[in-house]
Amino acid sequence: MSRLILTLNAGSSSIKFGLYAAAAEPVEEARGQIDALGPAARLILEPRGAPRQDTDLGPTDHAGGVQAILAALAPLTAGRPIAGVGHRVVHGGPDLDGPRQIDIPLLYLLRGYEPLAPLHQPHNLAAVEAAQAAFPEAVQIACFDTAFHRGHPWVNDTFALPRRYYDNGVRRYGFHGLSYDYVMGAMRRDWPRLADGRVIVAHLGNGASICAIRQGRSVGSSMGFSALDGLPMGTRSGQLDPGVLLYMMQREGLTADQISDLLYRESGLKGLSGISHDMRTLLESDRKEAAEAIDYYVFRLRREIGAMAAVLGGVDAVVFTGGIGENAAPIRSRAIAGLGFLGLSIAPAANEVSAPRIDAGPVPVLVVPTDEERVIARAVAGSLDGAARAAG
Amino acid sequence: MSRLILTLNAGSSSIKFGLYAAAAEPVEEARGQIDALGPAARLILEPRGAPRQDTDLGPTDHAGGVQAILAALAPLTAGRPIAGVGHRVVHGGPDLDGPRQIDIPLLYLLRGYEPLAPLHQPHNLAAVEAAQAAFPEAVQIACFDTAFHRGHPWVNDTFALPRRYYDNGVRRYGFHGLSYDYVMGAMRRDWPRLADGRVIVAHLGNGASICAIRQGRSVGSSMGFSALDGLPMGTRSGQLDPGVLLYMMQREGLTADQISDLLYRESGLKGLSGISHDMRTLLESDRKEAAEAIDYYVFRLRREIGAMAAVLGGVDAVVFTGGIGENAAPIRSRAIAGLGFLGLSIAPAANEVSAPRIDAGPVPVLVVPTDEERVIARAVAGSLDGAARAAG
Repeated sequence: MSRLILTLNAGSSSIKFGLYAAAAEPVEEARGQIDALGPAARLILEPRGAPRQDTDLGPTDHAGGVQAILAALAPLTAGRPIAGVGHRVVHGGPDLDGPRQIDIPLLYLLRGYEPLAPLHQPHNLAAVEAAQAAFPEAVQIACFDTAFHRGHPWVNDTFALPRRYYDNGVRRYGFHGLSYDYVMGAMRRDWPRLADGRVIVAHLGNGASICAIRQGRSVGSSMGFSALDGLPMGTRSGQLDPGVLLYMMQREGLTADQISDLLYRESGLKGLSGISHDMRTLLESDRKEAAEAIDYYVFRLRREIGAMAAVLGGVDAVVFTGGIGENAAPIRSRAIAGLGFLGLSIAPAANEVSAPRIDAGPVPVLVVPTDEERVIARAVAGSLDGAARAAG
Repeated sequence: MSRLILTLNAGSSSIKFGLYAAAAEPVEEARGQIDALGPAARLILEPRGAPRQDTDLGPTDHAGGVQAILAALAPLTAGRPIAGVGHRVVHGGPDLDGPRQIDIPLLYLLRGYEPLAPLHQPHNLAAVEAAQAAFPEAVQIACFDTAFHRGHPWVNDTFALPRRYYDNGVRRYGFHGLSYDYVMGAMRRDWPRLADGRVIVAHLGNGASICAIRQGRSVGSSMGFSALDGLPMGTRSGQLDPGVLLYMMQREGLTADQISDLLYRESGLKGLSGISHDMRTLLESDRKEAAEAIDYYVFRLRREIGAMAAVLGGVDAVVFTGGIGENAAPIRSRAIAGLGFLGLSIAPAANEVSAPRIDAGPVPVLVVPTDEERVIARAVAGSLDGAARAAG
């Protein structure tokens, strides 16, 4: 009887999950998510080839959420064992450069990184504990958003602070690594020559970052020590003059928690537009503030594509991924406009339908739908394989 | 008898000055500076065509410094009147787009900008008051480092914060405007075709910024709301993830003043190398930490050249200015290395001697020694002319 892999991607108020039949290339059987963890959680389940199911869960925490996922998946598992659970863990610190099997020492290590990602890491680890309780026999694997970037040259990893800060872990870790990993895998399959060159990938979702990749390895990212830096996001500021924080402290008398709340939850598209954090809403709005927020978003994205081209010494392909990157044709075309000097231009018809290839110039521009859950499932499958080989 | 123009450029512990015969193009008669204002100030005077004079002043404040400058210049003025005094004022706020004659309302306005440039503006204005007392008959002119950037498009001026921040003056003002103004004047004279195109100017001194200029107008700068942002500097951090400041507040318990001191005085080349803030010292050092600090400096500079090229949609010329930009051949050559995709490359022999033109590729790379004092003197001369015309 084939074994199953469960993936969990726990955020502050949501858990995304996937169910796969274990194989070298895992076979998706279902995916879904719990939204609004807390007083009125809601579970969405999308079994492969069957209708979507929505369920109101009522008051639910992370542990209860994992239980609810298990209950919802039970009819699909049909008695087959969950052999491995894969977790997205935002922060793997300075050394972890790939997925790791979770044991007690690793869990302690990852707890130590909570101050580096206070809005994500505790939730990721809560899901690990809930899964350990629910599936005590299963292998638990952590996949880190930072791991893909761990080969950065030192200059791309440090800030110009006294050196003790770097030594103490204040570095440009980079995030969205599972997404970049998936995109590069897809490129190796579909565009192997390009995958071996100088690639700029823009992951544009609720969070957003841009990554410079040479021969499949990250050499630089717009993000950052925290999930705040770089591109503007739905509610996060992106790049900000450090003097602005000093101003907030010294002139506005804001506390660290107030500034954190402002920069993580009230800034970005939401703050600039005063309308919505959601790019779809802004693109449909005819208000000047919506247009200006989009102008800013596109401007900073274009600027960072230029910066990443300089990091790479030129560019052989640009890739858009993430919810906005995969779907928002006007964002893609406007970001690329004016970058003809890099050999970049957009084919309007292909762009309009989010075709896999949307360029009209000498340098390919691709749209690659990301799948972070699949990267996690592959890591679990690899671990199960390894265990089977070791046992055999 | 020809009238004279005095320029004053007052920093926290120094005052640079220049003495000019008033003319449409002012004729320099002397320049110099007072260093180490405070307990043991020292005056350096360089009269044109005569030996340099060094004088220990003992305990001296800004007002005393202006008096000492006047006393030192007396033999050179030979009774000719100081008709106008020009001041470098770092911050002109969101509206002042050129030099202004200083009257009471302007002085109040400029005092209001002290919170936006707390380390510079109060000293600039102290020098204004000292000069008003010393030369009550003279016209006093303020020249703003922000003025050159005031034509920025909105997207290049804002941050992705709630809109009230922009309205309250939290903007990307940009600085080093007097230097950029001088450089563009020199280009209009010597390279008029290039001056009308897309120019990237890197002002690399103790402070450093990079500016994207289209048809003579700034359209973007790496600096910033404060003098902290963008390129790393002698003791300033340059670009920093806002999450790092939250970390310093929440995890290290640092106060705003401690963070300000750290980022303005202990970071940049000094912090990264642990050796010196001075690029000359680092270039002469054979220590690994010096080499790494230089690596970082060059990396960030190259990255920002790419970003500014994207802002401009391509580049027709790159200009180096400021103490490091004018003199540090290895910094120039290393920053440009890898930017061949922008048409940029360096001619080693010309670069070695800091020739006016140092490129070996299709896009010109220039070295233009800056002269901020001359820009100030010209503004005063223009004001005197205007007053004469109005009176005539």
